[in-house]
Amino acid sequence: MRPTPVFEQLGLIGCGLMGGSFALALKQAGLVRRVAGYSKSPSTLQRARELGVIDVEAPSALLAVSGADLVLIAVPVAATEDTFKAIRHLVGPEALVMDVGSTKGDVVAAARRSFKDKLAQFVPAHPIAGKECAGVDHADARLYHGCQVILTPTPETRTAQVDRARQVWTALGAQVRQMSPEAHDAAYATVSHLPHLLAFAAMNAIGAQPQAQEFLELAGPGFRDFTRIAASDPSVWRDILLANQAEVLAQARHFRAALDTLEDAMRRQDAAALQSLIRQASEARARWRLGGQADPSAPPESP
Amino acid sequence: MRPTPVFEQLGLIGCGLMGGSFALALKQAGLVRRVAGYSKSPSTLQRARELGVIDVEAPSALLAVSGADLVLIAVPVAATEDTFKAIRHLVGPEALVMDVGSTKGDVVAAARRSFKDKLAQFVPAHPIAGKECAGVDHADARLYHGCQVILTPTPETRTAQVDRARQVWTALGAQVRQMSPEAHDAAYATVSHLPHLLAFAAMNAIGAQPQAQEFLELAGPGFRDFTRIAASDPSVWRDILLANQAEVLAQARHFRAALDTLEDAMRRQDAAALQSLIRQASEARARWRLGGQADPSAPPESP
Repeated sequence: MRPTPVFEQLGLIGCGLMGGSFALALKQAGLVRRVAGYSKSPSTLQRARELGVIDVEAPSALLAVSGADLVLIAVPVAATEDTFKAIRHLVGPEALVMDVGSTKGDVVAAARRSFKDKLAQFVPAHPIAGKECAGVDHADARLYHGCQVILTPTPETRTAQVDRARQVWTALGAQVRQMSPEAHDAAYATVSHLPHLLAFAAMNAIGAQPQAQEFLELAGPGFRDFTRIAASDPSVWRDILLANQAEVLAQARHFRAALDTLEDAMRRQDAAALQSLIRQASEARARWRLGGQADPSAPPESP
Repeated sequence: MRPTPVFEQLGLIGCGLMGGSFALALKQAGLVRRVAGYSKSPSTLQRARELGVIDVEAPSALLAVSGADLVLIAVPVAATEDTFKAIRHLVGPEALVMDVGSTKGDVVAAARRSFKDKLAQFVPAHPIAGKECAGVDHADARLYHGCQVILTPTPETRTAQVDRARQVWTALGAQVRQMSPEAHDAAYATVSHLPHLLAFAAMNAIGAQPQAQEFLELAGPGFRDFTRIAASDPSVWRDILLANQAEVLAQARHFRAALDTLEDAMRRQDAAALQSLIRQASEARARWRLGGQADPSAPPESP
């Protein structure tokens, strides 16, 4: 593998947790000389500079990308298309442009509509990382270390740009995979978007009952982990669930069918059927490992 | 508070994770002179002695309780009634008897049927602790430290025994609460049993799809935490879901109603309604704290 390129300037659009962590990680790895940042919120922008996440406060997205050979769009998914329009005219012909959105079909469609000839330089990316706590104050140079990053290049994207994107994320300690935007959205509807929807529903179902407070006080570590993702950012998840609506609803139908089967076994007091259904789930989960390193012979992980 | 009593002999019926951890914790706290253990599995019993969890291998449950002033029944919930019958004639008149089952209505009903006059000495207990990995090899003297323990005495239970039970668990570092068996089962259907059922269904829904393996390899930390409880022991959870069937199915109806509402907002592409539903869930989860120490002003926890 060739040495990881060192970039002259990162143009960072959006200085929250994801963008801020990327900038910090690049700096720490010595892969960028200067970070010009833009945030729609002046206080976030100022804070990003105070924290050393960015070096220059750009007065607009357009000016942040001016002179940049690497551009990261780390704004809410719903704001991505406006960002493409805003920066298009000053993205240099060799600049690598990436985003970090959790859905890819909608981002690629927006790029096709609004990024025009720059589409060849755009490598849509989805780092499987995050925290419930958003904002530049939680930016962390180690956020992407050990995580997976999915690249979903369009047919128009130049291979050289995909290679550079792969090198950058690998240098930050991530494990890079590549797939089509459609395959990405189907997979993440299953393993991320639906779980979030279910966790939101589980919290709301408790909240709708008069004994909610009493119930919640009794909850233990299993509940803590099961519902952790329910604390995620409402506007981010509104956008994700709407952008990937069809796939998420399709996965919700699979989930309801599996729940029906379990409930039926309970209603029939069919102990053997119920145990067999639980064993399927338990064995599948015990075999699973973060990052795809499943080991069929391994014992279940410690909690 | 009076000093914690020191027991002459713990009669431990069932030497798995829960029972083994209790014995180790009591020993480490200097609260018991001798542990006589019984397990239906000879290899478990031998291992319990090798690990120092028990001092004496009893040839039967009956002989384990002979001479014991403290008895812990830590067998699968479905085996509890047979245990009551097996030990009844040798439980001393002053002995404190507890269980550790995750459901309480069925255990109390079994005690009423089969423990007869010993019901006055029985303090049903549910420690909110556990691991996905079962068995005496994972027994851990710190398992109950910092966890909640729910006591659900029957009307016949002597107050002095409830006080002693409270002292023992408090001495092991647990936070003790008391409620009726019915209130317990309704609450834990909500915050534990239904979440397990949903996690089982989520795993099975993925497993039923041809791309299951590919999907699972892409899953990240959110999925890891959301599905952790799906790796739980199948026979234990079969018993819990059957024992608390009516309450769990009632909670499943609440859950489906909340899921319907979220899905409807997605289908209508009603961004404002969807965000408001997610915000409800997110804020409720962000306020929640393990052990009931909710702080309405606190920021969300770190992952």
